[in-house]
Amino acid sequence: MPKISVHTGNENKIFHVPEGISLSDALKRQGFLLETPCNGKGICGKCRVLIHNSVPYTSEEKTHLSPSDINKGVHLSCMVKVYDNLEISLNTDQRNSSIVTDANISETIGRPVVRKTFVNLPRPSISDQRSDDVRFISSFNENNLYSGFQSFSLSFLRELPDILREKDFDITIIDISGSVTGVESGNTVSKNFGVAVDIGTTTLAAYLYDLNTGKQMAVSSKLNPQKKYGADVISRIEYSSKGKENQAEMALIIRNALNDLIQQLVTAAGIHHTDIYAVTLSGNTTMLHLLLELPSANIASAPFIPVLLSGLTLKPCDLELNINPKGRLFVLPSVSAYIGSDTTAAVLSTGMHKNTEISLLIDIGTNGEIVIGNNSFLYACSTAAGPAFEGANISCGIGSVDGAISAVSIADNGTLKIDTIGGYKPIGICGSGLIDAVACMLKIGVMDETGRILDDEELPDNAKIYSNRLIKINNQKAFLLVRASNTIHGENIYISQKDIRELQNAKAAIAAGINILIDEIRSDVDDIKNVYLSGGFGSFINIDSAITIGLLPKDLSGRTKPVGNAAGAGAIYTLLSAENLSDICAIAKQIKYLELSARLDFTYQYTENMFFGSDI
Amino acid sequence: MPKISVHTGNENKIFHVPEGISLSDALKRQGFLLETPCNGKGICGKCRVLIHNSVPYTSEEKTHLSPSDINKGVHLSCMVKVYDNLEISLNTDQRNSSIVTDANISETIGRPVVRKTFVNLPRPSISDQRSDDVRFISSFNENNLYSGFQSFSLSFLRELPDILREKDFDITIIDISGSVTGVESGNTVSKNFGVAVDIGTTTLAAYLYDLNTGKQMAVSSKLNPQKKYGADVISRIEYSSKGKENQAEMALIIRNALNDLIQQLVTAAGIHHTDIYAVTLSGNTTMLHLLLELPSANIASAPFIPVLLSGLTLKPCDLELNINPKGRLFVLPSVSAYIGSDTTAAVLSTGMHKNTEISLLIDIGTNGEIVIGNNSFLYACSTAAGPAFEGANISCGIGSVDGAISAVSIADNGTLKIDTIGGYKPIGICGSGLIDAVACMLKIGVMDETGRILDDEELPDNAKIYSNRLIKINNQKAFLLVRASNTIHGENIYISQKDIRELQNAKAAIAAGINILIDEIRSDVDDIKNVYLSGGFGSFINIDSAITIGLLPKDLSGRTKPVGNAAGAGAIYTLLSAENLSDICAIAKQIKYLELSARLDFTYQYTENMFFGSDI
Repeated sequence: MPKISVHTGNENKIFHVPEGISLSDALKRQGFLLETPCNGKGICGKCRVLIHNSVPYTSEEKTHLSPSDINKGVHLSCMVKVYDNLEISLNTDQRNSSIVTDANISETIGRPVVRKTFVNLPRPSISDQRSDDVRFISSFNENNLYSGFQSFSLSFLRELPDILREKDFDITIIDISGSVTGVESGNTVSKNFGVAVDIGTTTLAAYLYDLNTGKQMAVSSKLNPQKKYGADVISRIEYSSKGKENQAEMALIIRNALNDLIQQLVTAAGIHHTDIYAVTLSGNTTMLHLLLELPSANIASAPFIPVLLSGLTLKPCDLELNINPKGRLFVLPSVSAYIGSDTTAAVLSTGMHKNTEISLLIDIGTNGEIVIGNNSFLYACSTAAGPAFEGANISCGIGSVDGAISAVSIADNGTLKIDTIGGYKPIGICGSGLIDAVACMLKIGVMDETGRILDDEELPDNAKIYSNRLIKINNQKAFLLVRASNTIHGENIYISQKDIRELQNAKAAIAAGINILIDEIRSDVDDIKNVYLSGGFGSFINIDSAITIGLLPKDLSGRTKPVGNAAGAGAIYTLLSAENLSDICAIAKQIKYLELSARLDFTYQYTENMFFGSDI
Repeated sequence: MPKISVHTGNENKIFHVPEGISLSDALKRQGFLLETPCNGKGICGKCRVLIHNSVPYTSEEKTHLSPSDINKGVHLSCMVKVYDNLEISLNTDQRNSSIVTDANISETIGRPVVRKTFVNLPRPSISDQRSDDVRFISSFNENNLYSGFQSFSLSFLRELPDILREKDFDITIIDISGSVTGVESGNTVSKNFGVAVDIGTTTLAAYLYDLNTGKQMAVSSKLNPQKKYGADVISRIEYSSKGKENQAEMALIIRNALNDLIQQLVTAAGIHHTDIYAVTLSGNTTMLHLLLELPSANIASAPFIPVLLSGLTLKPCDLELNINPKGRLFVLPSVSAYIGSDTTAAVLSTGMHKNTEISLLIDIGTNGEIVIGNNSFLYACSTAAGPAFEGANISCGIGSVDGAISAVSIADNGTLKIDTIGGYKPIGICGSGLIDAVACMLKIGVMDETGRILDDEELPDNAKIYSNRLIKINNQKAFLLVRASNTIHGENIYISQKDIRELQNAKAAIAAGINILIDEIRSDVDDIKNVYLSGGFGSFINIDSAITIGLLPKDLSGRTKPVGNAAGAGAIYTLLSAENLSDICAIAKQIKYLELSARLDFTYQYTENMFFGSDI
């Protein structure tokens, strides 16, 4: 069997693999964290590795890899079949990962949500005639005996006699969040895994942990397959609300996707589905309703009333999730129709609810969710930014894919410096690139504070050098970013006057929300000691540019940090410590939700923030 | 429509009925408590009424009714079709009822197990955006909000939005034993019924109560259909243990029977199945295992380990019982393999667990269950009496049916006085008749203290008059009770030497159990202030005869009272007061079970009690 030697930043590992296996599968089976949202089809380009041996390139690889990548020996591991010994280095470029979680997970390990205890029960005899159920109960809670009616399921009771006797009354008790959910024959304490899931509107992410050690075993992610019913929550609610069949269809498709992720995790970690006893689920309120097959129509129209906001404990069979049937699912608690458990989980992961200092948490997406507060108060609002930050409704907009322009800056010689994801030839502009570009336009003076692109003759002297970038597209003014000759598709990449208006609307909505929260707590920007930018977008945004265009309040630059997928991190926290499960309920209870649509000051703030600031 | 005028001891009631309806159905629809275990087929003879009009008799009625009955106008109501106005009196002969419950039910009404509360919820608005679940929870428990994860079922959550909105947020909350199990649209507080069920090895009894008022609405009973798998628990366990299919078959047959009883109850009371929200279930440990489809094999062999002894809360769907799906079933707690919840319920109904005086509870059947104690201790044992008390294994033995000899006494002139159930011509002898007869044989001197029937020549002078009753059957000595010419079948009814040996074994087992319990508490008979005889047999036994043959300790005559179906009464008590549900758990915990098979003193006591006492 061929041998693979893997070098990462942390370790060197050598192992044998079956001949002909794909390199990505081989790596995942050894527990290496590789993301393969396209499921090994060579489409997503995310499973890059550096191979030190000479291996031929497939046509898929040639499409996704740059000449410099190929020069170095970078491959898509899913496209490499292993027939000979290989020596590889794992790419640690985090840009490839759309889901980033905070690294300080180890701090949060407490009493994990699932605890298993091995018990050697006394055997029955004529002098110890306790029934199977009483003997079982006494193994973990002598006081509970006869204190009231039990709620065992009949299927549990039917199995109990055999389970107790299979290993001669050696058993393992499964305690999930303080409730005993089952018992297994013999000693199974070492098999105790949990999965944290973040159900994003766009991306699903799942994290497998060994609950005994707190160690991350595997990560998997994929696009939310409900995207085919619409990119945003409203169009999905509309589809789901057309009938019970639609509602069931959308629930099934997301549940299947979660099972796919779980399959990837168990394969990568080399464990069995039944070794997983808990799943914690964060997501926005709509995603959770769709997952649970709950009517979601009332979320979409005023007064915006969800069916469920409380945290909910379910059995795996309730969602047909392929984990141990004695396990439990925890749907994390939400706050309102547009402040979901992705936000409460994000708050949990930042720790802002325990801090005396005031913090601001911002998740910028189609909806901007914003939370302000500390250990004595928490306020939140949600504001409809539209899809501009995700590159949608923008002339040359595109998602955060390889080749997207993700950063624009002004070089010392005054020329524009363009960076793309993965260093590829540009194919379009993503949200962070758009913000950078508009900030640059403001700085170099080709656009005024109202957002109007200047005419050639209006350009100030120091901006004359950019006059060849002022173009017209369909009779509309535009600013040329990359000439057709330098793009992958041979067409200009530019920012139109309309694109700027879209961005103005989006940033005004977010900025208004932030200002209203600051007003609500009768505070000012100086009192905010930490700003957490969560979500993929928050990780890649140039904070100075965001401040330049007035998306974030000025002077917060030094206090702002991206926290990656804080929702996913929060879901992991609740898995690793049962205390966090109760904390997240307290957070949901604590957060006071401000409904902006009902506030006169929102319209005022929105208008106020529409223009670009004059104090750049 | 014909009119029926009914006179009972308590009331006169006049009502119209559809032409052609059977009189039994007409009476049950009006809420009169008629037992029809044969389901209106004219077989059981239990639905007797007195009709003051002249109504022709069917052939079934002529079989079941005596000439004197027919002379009086007694009919089987199930055989009478109503075409004309009728004036009837309801027979209050309790002998017809195999199930008697203590009358003092009204004392036990506390906070019923099901409480319904009508709530007028605030409507959602932009200033009150609480979700459906939070709004619902706040209607009954403001403190519970977000205090932790909820365990709502998804089906509940799916219905919730419509239920809340159907009557514009007027709802009724259903609270069962302290847990909210559901919600209904509008005000449904008046529909709140419960059923108490006693699952006897021989007979099933069900009692319908209005939980708002504590009023009994209907009673129904039928033979346990599992009888076809054997009269005793051991043969049923053997059948059930042959395979999962058998186990499922026996569960199905008993569940169907319970649904039949519920059907009878709702028909009699004129309510709907979904008006029933709680069912409490008492029964011996084996019957409960068979009902719950639990493996029962370990009950039958040492060390006699049941799967379940705890009280158990179930949903109606768990047993496929046809009541409101938002209701709950309460399987009452048991103590050991042979001290079931029929016994704990019986203890509850006597109140002996609250009394400072020491009481003795005896349920005499194939197994004798005996409990001794007071408000500070309770001890119990079970002793295998065999089926003699039920008329089985006795030459002319028969169950407690019409025509069974139920009492034998010595008239002043020295002749034997024979009484039968219903006053019919004798067809055999039941348990209470057997005890009477043997007590008489001892008194008149035709049998010695060892139980030996004397030879003709051994008879003392004053017993010579019975010498013509000393006969031989198959070369075995016997005592003739009723000559062939006076019996219904034209054959002698007698008691054989072997019958006496059977009775000696049976009474020795019970007496030994009683004595061991009295010894265990280091007490004596004088300290026992109340003796409760439960079960059908206990209601009909002649206590003096029982003392004469040594079944009960002497000197307890004045302190002994029959308590009828105390198990059924206990099940009713738990329905009418949630406090009793917790009391019965405390009783089950309090009772210390003595396993007689493990005790040397049992063999001693059994032998000691084999003979009949000398101090008559």
